[in-house]
Amino acid sequence: MQENDRDLLPEGLGDRLPQQAWASQTVRRAAHDVLASHGYARVETPVLEFEKALAHRMAGVQVRRMFRFVDPVSMRMLALRSDITAQVARIAATGLAQAPRPLRLSYSGQVVTIKGDGLDPARERLQLGAELVGADSTEAVAEIVELAIEALRAAGATGVSVDFTLPDLVDTLSAGALPLPSMNIEAVRQMLDAKDAGGLVDAGGEAYLPLLYAVGPFDSAIEQLAAFDVGGVLASRIAALRAIAARVGGKARLTLDPSERHGFEYQSWFGFTIYADGVPGSLGRGGTYSILGQTGRNPESATGFSLYPDPLIESLSAAAGEERRLFLPLGHDREVASRQRAIGWVTVAALSEADDALALGCSHKLEGGEAVAL
Amino acid sequence: MQENDRDLLPEGLGDRLPQQAWASQTVRRAAHDVLASHGYARVETPVLEFEKALAHRMAGVQVRRMFRFVDPVSMRMLALRSDITAQVARIAATGLAQAPRPLRLSYSGQVVTIKGDGLDPARERLQLGAELVGADSTEAVAEIVELAIEALRAAGATGVSVDFTLPDLVDTLSAGALPLPSMNIEAVRQMLDAKDAGGLVDAGGEAYLPLLYAVGPFDSAIEQLAAFDVGGVLASRIAALRAIAARVGGKARLTLDPSERHGFEYQSWFGFTIYADGVPGSLGRGGTYSILGQTGRNPESATGFSLYPDPLIESLSAAAGEERRLFLPLGHDREVASRQRAIGWVTVAALSEADDALALGCSHKLEGGEAVAL
Repeated sequence: MQENDRDLLPEGLGDRLPQQAWASQTVRRAAHDVLASHGYARVETPVLEFEKALAHRMAGVQVRRMFRFVDPVSMRMLALRSDITAQVARIAATGLAQAPRPLRLSYSGQVVTIKGDGLDPARERLQLGAELVGADSTEAVAEIVELAIEALRAAGATGVSVDFTLPDLVDTLSAGALPLPSMNIEAVRQMLDAKDAGGLVDAGGEAYLPLLYAVGPFDSAIEQLAAFDVGGVLASRIAALRAIAARVGGKARLTLDPSERHGFEYQSWFGFTIYADGVPGSLGRGGTYSILGQTGRNPESATGFSLYPDPLIESLSAAAGEERRLFLPLGHDREVASRQRAIGWVTVAALSEADDALALGCSHKLEGGEAVAL
Repeated sequence: MQENDRDLLPEGLGDRLPQQAWASQTVRRAAHDVLASHGYARVETPVLEFEKALAHRMAGVQVRRMFRFVDPVSMRMLALRSDITAQVARIAATGLAQAPRPLRLSYSGQVVTIKGDGLDPARERLQLGAELVGADSTEAVAEIVELAIEALRAAGATGVSVDFTLPDLVDTLSAGALPLPSMNIEAVRQMLDAKDAGGLVDAGGEAYLPLLYAVGPFDSAIEQLAAFDVGGVLASRIAALRAIAARVGGKARLTLDPSERHGFEYQSWFGFTIYADGVPGSLGRGGTYSILGQTGRNPESATGFSLYPDPLIESLSAAAGEERRLFLPLGHDREVASRQRAIGWVTVAALSEADDALALGCSHKLEGGEAVAL
């Protein structure tokens, strides 16, 4: 190994230098302020815990994507958290089991996976979200979708769009109007997800073909879905989607992709993905789900979203403006300097005669008690 | 294993429920705002990286206290960070090697160790700090000590006190006025650290006995140290300590313990520990140190501090006040609600007729466009 090798960071792990870290702080503060103003109380969770506890509360948590190792203290397997939602579900089911419902919680923190996700090599990401525990109604979904949009806009995202989906659509239809042999259900799901009409027919899902056209801008796609739903099995869901769209449509572009499944492994009747202009890929997703209770307690319904704002942070950091920095010469009046900070200046104190105000990024210098432009 | 075992968190790892998480956010924001106002730019570092990189930059980093495991991607050893200072040193020596000096950086994040520290079983802690890279002068130290005090006070600490130490005191004295056989140096250090007069004599350190009395309130202890320093080997350090005390003495109680070593394994000429009223144990420490450069580059001097604010967060969370929470009945005017949030209300929207404003912690209810006390 070369000496310099020691400085390399592992693949998919990186630092945020000042501009990126500034953008990261800005995004987190703005989003949390929005969540707090809607009554979502912040919780914080450990970066590692028992593997079993992380995997236990929700379907679809992929243990094999987590870093796992033996705890020398307990001799049990620990894992680095790859999803904070599962930890918040644990808190809701244990420490806050007795808190009144609906319970509104928010969180943010770093999550880690062994490998990156698809084309994105990152193994560590910021996750920031909100969970509304004890409700998965149309009202709950509307609040959560609206909150996700508002949090992203406050964090600096523009041109937000939201794609709605119905994660258990095939289950619902095949149990009702459009029965399928149970051995074909998974294949039909996959072909719908892949938008593969030929494959759908081969899987015995001809009757599901119209779903491939109920995709796109919300207003037209929901009409296609309603026309397809001749038996009315989906009527309550379609009405719910329309109500949610009416509530949030003024704040974001809406689309519908009723059979999209990727990323919604633990969602129940509703799911959504959120995007913003100029930011590659999605910024997060959410929906309704179920939290397993303590032994002997029933599962609890919940609605929530998780944002992964790293691409937004990258795009905002490129646009970071210059701050007003005031150079304080050696022997400056410390009271005056303190007053300048109180009115918003960032001050940079000289430590020796060699310190160069311009090199240190200062736009002004304290002279005779005043900030003078350099 | 019992079913409920799955919910237990590993020893030394825990959640922060809403009051604690609120206090944690308050502390971090207040401290970072102080650091930013003094020109310290925030950086963020990964929660894990190559073990060698974490251990390499600074003396005294204890690899065996870190969680370590093989990275399935690189097949090299990774470690969870146990100290962010070493990561910031890496950034200063690599990504920001060309940035002008002095370089001011700040950071915060969770750090993890395999075992707790002494009586404290916690294995995960919040670390928050500032590093002034390229300077370890009296001016640099004064800025860093003052900043640590100001950050803690802004975060809500009261009755802050600071204990100064001279980490390389025995090396300096034994190389000068009070020579020691090299085989005795470590024993003398240990006996001074333990305040063990008998042991000190046994270790051949009789001449060092007066140091045991140069301890306590700064003004008297520094006089003892000056009286002891008949040869003047310590004259420049004593002058520096007096200058630093003059600068920060108005903001904190100051004490001196010149031969304290614990926790200062990588400090050079100056170290300090910081405390606050009503908070058990210390809240952090800092001092001057050296950052190893890239191959072929010289080490760089630096000054910094690390706070571990968890005990402060605990004490502040107990004092968390009630917030003003406004209940929004079903069918409320959404524009009015938005205006109420804009003027500082936390709103809690009803999702169904069953939602109970009082149970949900609301003090007021929106009625006829007004906030009415419940």
